[in-house]
Amino acid sequence: MPVNLAAADPATLMPVAGVELGWAEAGMRKAARKDLLLIRIAAGAAVGAVFTENRFCAAPVQVCRAHLASGRGVRALVINTGCANAGTGEPGLAAARASCRAVAALLGCDPQQVLPFSTGVIMEPLPVERLIAALPQAVGRLAPDHWAQAASAIMTTDTLPKACSLRAAVGEHAVTITGVAKGAGMIRPNMATMLGYVATDAAVAPALMPQLTRRLADASFNRITIDGDTSTNDAFVLIASGAVPMAPIASFDDARMPALLAALTAVAQTLAQAIVRDGEGATKFIAITVEGAANEAEARAVAYRIAHSPLVKTAFFASDPNLGRILAAVGNAGIADLDQTRVQLHLNEVWVARDGGRHPDYREADGQRVMKGAEIAVRVQLGRGSAQTTVWTCDLSHEYVSINADYRS
Amino acid sequence: MPVNLAAADPATLMPVAGVELGWAEAGMRKAARKDLLLIRIAAGAAVGAVFTENRFCAAPVQVCRAHLASGRGVRALVINTGCANAGTGEPGLAAARASCRAVAALLGCDPQQVLPFSTGVIMEPLPVERLIAALPQAVGRLAPDHWAQAASAIMTTDTLPKACSLRAAVGEHAVTITGVAKGAGMIRPNMATMLGYVATDAAVAPALMPQLTRRLADASFNRITIDGDTSTNDAFVLIASGAVPMAPIASFDDARMPALLAALTAVAQTLAQAIVRDGEGATKFIAITVEGAANEAEARAVAYRIAHSPLVKTAFFASDPNLGRILAAVGNAGIADLDQTRVQLHLNEVWVARDGGRHPDYREADGQRVMKGAEIAVRVQLGRGSAQTTVWTCDLSHEYVSINADYRS
Repeated sequence: MPVNLAAADPATLMPVAGVELGWAEAGMRKAARKDLLLIRIAAGAAVGAVFTENRFCAAPVQVCRAHLASGRGVRALVINTGCANAGTGEPGLAAARASCRAVAALLGCDPQQVLPFSTGVIMEPLPVERLIAALPQAVGRLAPDHWAQAASAIMTTDTLPKACSLRAAVGEHAVTITGVAKGAGMIRPNMATMLGYVATDAAVAPALMPQLTRRLADASFNRITIDGDTSTNDAFVLIASGAVPMAPIASFDDARMPALLAALTAVAQTLAQAIVRDGEGATKFIAITVEGAANEAEARAVAYRIAHSPLVKTAFFASDPNLGRILAAVGNAGIADLDQTRVQLHLNEVWVARDGGRHPDYREADGQRVMKGAEIAVRVQLGRGSAQTTVWTCDLSHEYVSINADYRS
Repeated sequence: MPVNLAAADPATLMPVAGVELGWAEAGMRKAARKDLLLIRIAAGAAVGAVFTENRFCAAPVQVCRAHLASGRGVRALVINTGCANAGTGEPGLAAARASCRAVAALLGCDPQQVLPFSTGVIMEPLPVERLIAALPQAVGRLAPDHWAQAASAIMTTDTLPKACSLRAAVGEHAVTITGVAKGAGMIRPNMATMLGYVATDAAVAPALMPQLTRRLADASFNRITIDGDTSTNDAFVLIASGAVPMAPIASFDDARMPALLAALTAVAQTLAQAIVRDGEGATKFIAITVEGAANEAEARAVAYRIAHSPLVKTAFFASDPNLGRILAAVGNAGIADLDQTRVQLHLNEVWVARDGGRHPDYREADGQRVMKGAEIAVRVQLGRGSAQTTVWTCDLSHEYVSINADYRS
């Protein structure tokens, strides 16, 4: 059961001019299931992407990077579930390239203008012939108002489709932003088994896209974690179609950028948090804020150490305020000169540990009350500086073990 | 159920001249339970110790370090379960020091010659008055043949006491080595809180003890992992009583050192592996060997990344040869210039991945057969150099979640 998350109402998902979506049932792993998504992008759009930092990155990730580096622009994205096409060697690369050629032939563009994405089981060959055979069906369904179906087509172990849409004033124009994403395990940013696609009709200079995409990812998808595993296939793509008749934003100093960035961040964070809320076996949504760090890297290290501790995560699952486990995780975060007597710990509004030890006024009943909630804020103050960060995670439940033990069956 | 592990036969545990052990039921957390162990060490013994690297180290760890640094030698160890005395601030330090003073008064030594150890729940105050009240009972039981009782007295969530003993020829003398350890697994763990005590009657120069203890730990207790959480209290102590009338070994170049080191390593590895075999919820014992690394740090990083991956561990639990997850973990180990096309993966004798992709001859049935066993060897070759390491771990089961969710109830 996802934590305070409902499927997006399709009626709320606004089309983005210049972006069309079509799906198919290709039978990649199972029959009669949406498992192929095609996104067509109008000429002239600016596209940015960030990918997994896993060195065992999948064949489609390698092909994406090469195609983006060609500088020819992006006209289509082709996304399959059911098979990650990772750990598949040279045949996997050939399969990913073949899928791009097939898309290019159908849409009349260059194969290098097509980006391939895969998600699913690792180290199994991609059934690329089935993918190619289903492409005409997906092309036939291309339409701007298919975001809800797109969200469904990229699901793997997600229990709900994840999509989000909003309009924002950027300078004198109203722009639309719509995005979809999928989780839901092997999630640790940089990135997660996570695919995310956000499109806007705003105009952004292509040269600015890599930095804008990275900044957005760092504020959203790179702040979530389910189990600390980073998948071989993670990708986040930002499309700025430029369909709105505005002068392209070409710099972070542009007066219109704060409004655009805030709106894009809102969509990306909503999608990222939806992945955590629908994390494998999740029963709680936990925001971990680390303050008073010497620098942001240190803040992130502490936040992730807490978020990844199986002991902390099982305590959250049990609603057991066994909060010393959080202090132990702080101590394990690799800060060599940490002074434990300066560390403070809050759970929501409850001051649990003061100056490294249990707060004299702390009562187990207060910790218990907070732990029973479905949304919990952990706040750690290190007393070392002024850097801070927040990451979002979920608990570790029996259901997580069941899902991942039975994944392929 | 521990994996291929039985309780040591008390009759096989040999006394070590110069070392006496006594226990008590102090009621630290529960009544009528051995929860206090006292070890008296004869004058002139050499003692080495290594401690947790957790910066939130417990009060007893801080006191141990200070007492060892005083250079007065070690005459006693006092060990309690039921409370970790970690995250307890200044009162925790005072309690640990008080326990040392009480031991010193009873045994007629200096408080700085006493090392305190605690294991149990974090961030709860140590009931030091109960500990001190029970010390005379422990003193009354001091005897050289109480190793079996010692192994029981330090258990927390362990399902079996862990002890091991052997004799070895070192130069012209026969030496005895006996050790006990406690780990993780049982009904109310505070996990990975590992304590290990190994004693020998061999004579070793005090100056050599820190390095010898570290080397032993690196070959045994520092190669195991259950869940990647390092406790606030971990400690490993090596005692060389020198009761054997031999000239002290004062250098690693001493011709007798290889025999002593091999025997000590055998005892330490047996104890360390026993902790994994009795890991919380463990159903499999997994040895992960990484070869062909550029250096040992790299080999360890890869081995631990595999050993800590919840996805890999749940696949082992399910006996599901979802082995791409191992490749993904290799890719996540932080080797920036890893060439995935040089990576090989074996499971026992089965060649699973060749040159970064699925081996063409690999059959799922072969992977399935290996995964169904209770003892599994994972071998990864990186193709980068000649360094290698092995770490031991267990799977991640429903039982692990149950144990840790219910810890304090």
